[in-house]
Amino acid sequence: MKPNVLSKLGQRTAVPPISWLMQTALTRPRLISLAAGFTDNSTLPVEISRKLLNDILRSPKTGRPALQYGITAGETNLRALTAKHLQKLDGANSAGKGHSPSRVMITGGSQQLLYMTLEALCDEGDIILVEDPTYFVFLSILQSRGIKARGVKLERDGIDLAHLEKVLERLNKSGELRRVKALYLVTYFQNPTGATTSLAKKSAALKLLKKFGRVAGHPLYLLEDAAYRELSFSGGDDLPVSQAGQQLRPATPPTALTLPGAAERVIYTGTYSKPYAPGARVGFGILPEPLFTTVQRIKGNHDFGTANLLQQLLAGALSSGLYDKHVAKVQKNYARKSRVMKSALADHFPASVEIWESGGGLYFWARLPEGISAGVKSRVFQTALKNDVLYVPGELCYADDPSRAKPDNEMRISFGSASGENIRKGIARLGNVLKKFL
Amino acid sequence: MKPNVLSKLGQRTAVPPISWLMQTALTRPRLISLAAGFTDNSTLPVEISRKLLNDILRSPKTGRPALQYGITAGETNLRALTAKHLQKLDGANSAGKGHSPSRVMITGGSQQLLYMTLEALCDEGDIILVEDPTYFVFLSILQSRGIKARGVKLERDGIDLAHLEKVLERLNKSGELRRVKALYLVTYFQNPTGATTSLAKKSAALKLLKKFGRVAGHPLYLLEDAAYRELSFSGGDDLPVSQAGQQLRPATPPTALTLPGAAERVIYTGTYSKPYAPGARVGFGILPEPLFTTVQRIKGNHDFGTANLLQQLLAGALSSGLYDKHVAKVQKNYARKSRVMKSALADHFPASVEIWESGGGLYFWARLPEGISAGVKSRVFQTALKNDVLYVPGELCYADDPSRAKPDNEMRISFGSASGENIRKGIARLGNVLKKFL
Repeated sequence: MKPNVLSKLGQRTAVPPISWLMQTALTRPRLISLAAGFTDNSTLPVEISRKLLNDILRSPKTGRPALQYGITAGETNLRALTAKHLQKLDGANSAGKGHSPSRVMITGGSQQLLYMTLEALCDEGDIILVEDPTYFVFLSILQSRGIKARGVKLERDGIDLAHLEKVLERLNKSGELRRVKALYLVTYFQNPTGATTSLAKKSAALKLLKKFGRVAGHPLYLLEDAAYRELSFSGGDDLPVSQAGQQLRPATPPTALTLPGAAERVIYTGTYSKPYAPGARVGFGILPEPLFTTVQRIKGNHDFGTANLLQQLLAGALSSGLYDKHVAKVQKNYARKSRVMKSALADHFPASVEIWESGGGLYFWARLPEGISAGVKSRVFQTALKNDVLYVPGELCYADDPSRAKPDNEMRISFGSASGENIRKGIARLGNVLKKFL
Repeated sequence: MKPNVLSKLGQRTAVPPISWLMQTALTRPRLISLAAGFTDNSTLPVEISRKLLNDILRSPKTGRPALQYGITAGETNLRALTAKHLQKLDGANSAGKGHSPSRVMITGGSQQLLYMTLEALCDEGDIILVEDPTYFVFLSILQSRGIKARGVKLERDGIDLAHLEKVLERLNKSGELRRVKALYLVTYFQNPTGATTSLAKKSAALKLLKKFGRVAGHPLYLLEDAAYRELSFSGGDDLPVSQAGQQLRPATPPTALTLPGAAERVIYTGTYSKPYAPGARVGFGILPEPLFTTVQRIKGNHDFGTANLLQQLLAGALSSGLYDKHVAKVQKNYARKSRVMKSALADHFPASVEIWESGGGLYFWARLPEGISAGVKSRVFQTALKNDVLYVPGELCYADDPSRAKPDNEMRISFGSASGENIRKGIARLGNVLKKFL
């Protein structure tokens, strides 16, 4: 079999680094994985889903549409419920243009939406700006599709705006600005660092993109990936509540959809997978034209629309209020596990390791002192593996960007799927490994 | 908004012709659609799905894995059940290499598998040979991805082998053979003509592909799309049964997977959508290396694997025997509706219209006398629409192939979603329209 029968895309598409990590985990039964970004098994909505599916399939009237083909962009009721849900999260009083149901697309997870958006936007050789570090599967898509990534420094409240401007100016000078299509930001409890981007930074970034878009001669989009948004630890519980019981401020900063001009320049992707259930994979997005129409057509070629049964399940969860109740439970569980990990990190990690703590999501981010590698081939990683504990080497989350070296002294440590006991054990093991090298 | 922000793919991706037909249908409430390839609402497995989902979600032990992330290539049990199912349909006694579970991939419908296979195989400008006519959404994918299609004449028992050889020779002479990657055949109750490809023709086609593959310097794959395979009208009911109750011959010809060398050259795609439920969209495929590995990686970038809940639903249906019972019911229903349409066609269509009847699937194929157009802009189509009956103009099912003109005197007429009464009414309306022009 000669390999050249594959397309360039086929030849480029590499083994995803995470699947190697997963396989490694499988071969060591005693291993505690702090690598996986899985959802906690214990909070999966088994009972709720059973009840909701029973309701849907109780009669042919509701059951048949759920088992039939539907509309490529998604079921009308779920699109409307999703728009409403986003408005609520954003604290928007009325249906602004940014949150219109007609701009909502339902997909097989937000991953599919990211994929199709890149198909619609980017040719081989085009450029997407990403956070340094960023979501590594997004980097896999870029690599597979021959799209270049350029990193923008990340601070605890989002990207470094001065660096963003510098990168854009550099690309302008080198004549590459016309190849730039978007800035990709994971804005809430970021994967991998846990950082949340402030609204002020989103606003400033959008302004910069508009400015440089005028130079490029085409829009530079802000692609906001809010996959972890609903996994906030505060969950609204500790928020000031008005006398009428109305929430006075949202648990997380509003999305870029609330900014002026967002309807033309912001692509927003979100998901029900993480807050509800990855096994009932439903994601969504809001897209400006001409992207909405183009992505809708591309989705027609992928699958004609996401499975209706799953869409109706989510619509039922949202409209019954069971979704909100479930998310509150999930948030409390992750908040508890985050506290467990925080206390274990304080007990077992050397003080010279810098820890980024997050207000939500699934991850802690740890920085070893410069010069100590935590990369895949490092003694730290290999020793950790021998001691049956796995983390995601931070270097995997950096784009191939020739303008800077990849830092290799960082680790993503997840409390998503491990039990409280295993989190304590795993961090103790990892702490002992680190003490040998620091 | 300047349109050039879109990728070449984005700019090429056209409005799918079928969505225009669907929208037309929505604006005319009295309209009878004989265009849609939808599944019959009345046979959708509402009760069965409710029972199976209840079983899965009754306990955390089975419920949680169904709601969690899974494996990119699909759940192990469903892959094994799918391999077994295909073996049974093929009448294969033992687990041949062609039907190994390790080569099975589970996808969000077979459409997704077709899409990813083309991503893995074809660069812009590559060539796929297709039947004349063929499945129009496949043509949309080719068009979107800048892949050229070349048509091979179709006879009632599959492609015209002499014409296939001629096309391959012509491409060899023009230096384009190296761009040919596969021959795409819809082998059972084909969309749109209803034709079923005999095993002899599959075998001869595979031999030709091997021969020309040697000239091309890379494999030319046989891409067998068996989406309609299980919608056979004979359904096994009228088959000879051994004393042990074992079925002696399969209801449909075996797949190309049973041919020598298939494990290296045959890509097979199938689906549970049509026989079970499109709203619980699960498809599958069998792929040779290096395609399996490549498509698996691509799927990792699309969605990390199809929703587990749907996979477990299908696994439950298959392992409980409820799937087979349901399919038998579906087959009987379509067989009945096909008879209704056949009798209506005999009553109402002018004798000069050539009708292709099928032994399964959802379609009749009608050929008007040469020179009478049934195309989208034809008086026949427009008059039919005015008389509230819709069909799929056959011309939409022909690839853009500069080496021949597209026939425009054909129609795809579906009995899939219309009721028996509406089939009779719709055919009467269409017959009356045709009588005006013939």
